[in-house]
Amino acid sequence: MAQQSPVGYFRNRTISELAEQLRAGEVTAVELARGALTSIDELDGALNAFVTVDREGALEAAEKADAELGEGVDRGPLHGIPVAVKDIIEVAGLPTTMGSEHFADYVSTSDAECVRRLRDAGAVVVGKTTTHEFAFGPTGDSAHNGPSRNPHDTSRVTGGSSAGSGAAVAAGMVPLALGTDTGGSVRIPAALCGVVGFKPTFNAIPTGGVFPLSQSLDHVGVLARTAQDCRISYRVLAGLRTAPSRDSGQTASIGWIPPTALHPTDAEVDRIARAALDVEGFAVQDVELRDPVVMHKAFAGIQFSEAYAIHAERVAQNPHLFTPDVMRRLQEAGQTTGWQHVRALTARDQWRAEVNELLSHVDLLALPTTCVVAPEIGQRDITVDGTESNVRGALLSLTKPWNVAGVPAVSVPAGSIDGLPVGVQLVSRPGQEDLLLAAATRITN
Amino acid sequence: MAQQSPVGYFRNRTISELAEQLRAGEVTAVELARGALTSIDELDGALNAFVTVDREGALEAAEKADAELGEGVDRGPLHGIPVAVKDIIEVAGLPTTMGSEHFADYVSTSDAECVRRLRDAGAVVVGKTTTHEFAFGPTGDSAHNGPSRNPHDTSRVTGGSSAGSGAAVAAGMVPLALGTDTGGSVRIPAALCGVVGFKPTFNAIPTGGVFPLSQSLDHVGVLARTAQDCRISYRVLAGLRTAPSRDSGQTASIGWIPPTALHPTDAEVDRIARAALDVEGFAVQDVELRDPVVMHKAFAGIQFSEAYAIHAERVAQNPHLFTPDVMRRLQEAGQTTGWQHVRALTARDQWRAEVNELLSHVDLLALPTTCVVAPEIGQRDITVDGTESNVRGALLSLTKPWNVAGVPAVSVPAGSIDGLPVGVQLVSRPGQEDLLLAAATRITN
Repeated sequence: MAQQSPVGYFRNRTISELAEQLRAGEVTAVELARGALTSIDELDGALNAFVTVDREGALEAAEKADAELGEGVDRGPLHGIPVAVKDIIEVAGLPTTMGSEHFADYVSTSDAECVRRLRDAGAVVVGKTTTHEFAFGPTGDSAHNGPSRNPHDTSRVTGGSSAGSGAAVAAGMVPLALGTDTGGSVRIPAALCGVVGFKPTFNAIPTGGVFPLSQSLDHVGVLARTAQDCRISYRVLAGLRTAPSRDSGQTASIGWIPPTALHPTDAEVDRIARAALDVEGFAVQDVELRDPVVMHKAFAGIQFSEAYAIHAERVAQNPHLFTPDVMRRLQEAGQTTGWQHVRALTARDQWRAEVNELLSHVDLLALPTTCVVAPEIGQRDITVDGTESNVRGALLSLTKPWNVAGVPAVSVPAGSIDGLPVGVQLVSRPGQEDLLLAAATRITN
Repeated sequence: MAQQSPVGYFRNRTISELAEQLRAGEVTAVELARGALTSIDELDGALNAFVTVDREGALEAAEKADAELGEGVDRGPLHGIPVAVKDIIEVAGLPTTMGSEHFADYVSTSDAECVRRLRDAGAVVVGKTTTHEFAFGPTGDSAHNGPSRNPHDTSRVTGGSSAGSGAAVAAGMVPLALGTDTGGSVRIPAALCGVVGFKPTFNAIPTGGVFPLSQSLDHVGVLARTAQDCRISYRVLAGLRTAPSRDSGQTASIGWIPPTALHPTDAEVDRIARAALDVEGFAVQDVELRDPVVMHKAFAGIQFSEAYAIHAERVAQNPHLFTPDVMRRLQEAGQTTGWQHVRALTARDQWRAEVNELLSHVDLLALPTTCVVAPEIGQRDITVDGTESNVRGALLSLTKPWNVAGVPAVSVPAGSIDGLPVGVQLVSRPGQEDLLLAAATRITN
């Protein structure tokens, strides 16, 4: 049974509201930073969302943000807004552990490009969030600093790998967090923790300074309370200078992918996600996938080959430093053959062609974000709709297709089952992030 | 000791000369086709250059070519010219064995795109030439129809994999032959048989209808007596309609790559190849390779992974149908891991950058085509300049860099050692085939 969710300073505040209040003098950036730090102090003992909290750096940045606003220097919608950063993304002067003992003593000397852009926009980095070790797992419960815990039920996972980012936003410790998403690592914790998680088109946000998991699938993304907050942050991170187009309110045609085409799915999750699309202006019809096996093969062959290429020397020289969970996956990854990788690349091209084709008939695709609600921490097997599955495969099954395709995708809260959140996912054509996020703002539950 | 080379009908005739004679009424296409067929009858028992001879089809096409010329229909410089086609390239109505028992009974139902272009240009296909099984070997002595033999010494290999194409042109059975080149398979037999072999920029000649060996390295190329004949044929095969620029006779700057940077090289081969560049208008200087190991890794990882992806089911189901030589290579190829393939792709990008950099300082690069003259048939180990090597690695070492880079390369006869030919190789920037072949025509020996 789910517990009462903890209520941090930002639990009921959006970035848009905070931005207004800052400029109206109703709140200061320092107050927001203190709100974040106090919430972390109060709540993080139970949640383990943070690996590192940069109290001093946050307050200093907040003071600077206030001073600038006082002098009329306005860096835009993220000016003075606290942000948490997943701990595989470099922040100058802070440790970046990658969730791993391998990097237990590593301190970054420069900012990742995405962090640099946030700071340039006036955002205030408050700390680094728990990641599944090397981002190589969708549960978020296998990290050198211990598992992050779901604010809705601390016996359950947050989902991962951007685990702490999901918990931190869900608990209201911060209004915004950076994550990375290789097979669903932003959208899965967003869905399981009940917040919005968004990844744009492949490479729309630069990955410089982000520790790679699988370079042709890795995306930087954001987690926030609302789709509108994701939209604001995305524009900063992607370096877009023009204003977003206003939501025209026109009808959006949406192709619903019955999730069982990809993985057995809890019937109630399916129902709730589908029902979230009962929105004025959404015209929803079912669409059929031609050959989902192609997508599964593409993902496995590419992710395993690329991930092992990153870690081969660590596996050879210091295997004992990996968590057992990630070590097992790496051993499996190392078995992938070159010819399977070649076929995976061909399968990727086939899947991309199929997604392009699907998205030529509708504006958006939709499906649940995950096929189950948050599993227990440490749980590795799960029965979904009567079928035995492994938790990892189940959690990734509905999100990874959009990494293989490289297209934008967002997870939006759709409801809950016994207090555990359910997410619905929208997917758009490459470059149509604005349309996607405008549609996402229309989903309310 | 080398033997007296056999003298076929085309031994001393270039395509340019034949084209003039055809139009002057001094010879007919039927006479040329008969010249080819008679030469094959006389010489091929000793050389095994041909798998299939299409006597009837050749004479029919030749008659048509004569009739058209008689009616004033002139299809250009290849009109009425006999051509031989490597037996991994599809020719409608003829068997395509791929040099393998796997395809012993296979008959093609359509022309490869390159064959279609030759026929559209009026060329007369006389037959299919011996290929190393599935083009997977640079010696040309491992094929279901037996080894092809070097016209300069029938105890020695032609080189491969376009083995029969090399022997057929060298012996004067045809003035032109199609080959494919994945690591040197056009240039190696050209060098070892004493003819010109040319491969253009990657994908400049379409590979449709050509059985793949390694799709990101495969090139269609040509073998002929002169660089000018290659130039004429290339323009047809690449679908170029404008006339080639005239050789300006200007100085070409050439970067000489000392071959020992890539592989131990016979000192006399090195000397002869280098001396062939003592040409008025060539300004030659040595250049240094930064990291040749990168190139070797790229080639092995990519070729092995892609080749095994083509053959995995055949290896699993009918391993006994492969020649032992190719079966051993495939077993090795299947061991390549996915992560090694990923690193090979990265290494390829590094090598391409290095080649681009080298070619930004000089017009052309040059080096010997092979590091040794033709080895004995069946020989698998060889001592080169005091170092034990395997024949396969030795033969490929100086040609494969230009497949990894995807840049045009041509092998031109440079001289001989005890009657066995030595080739020198020129390499240009992508798209500069015309400059490359114009320079190649200036090399005479």
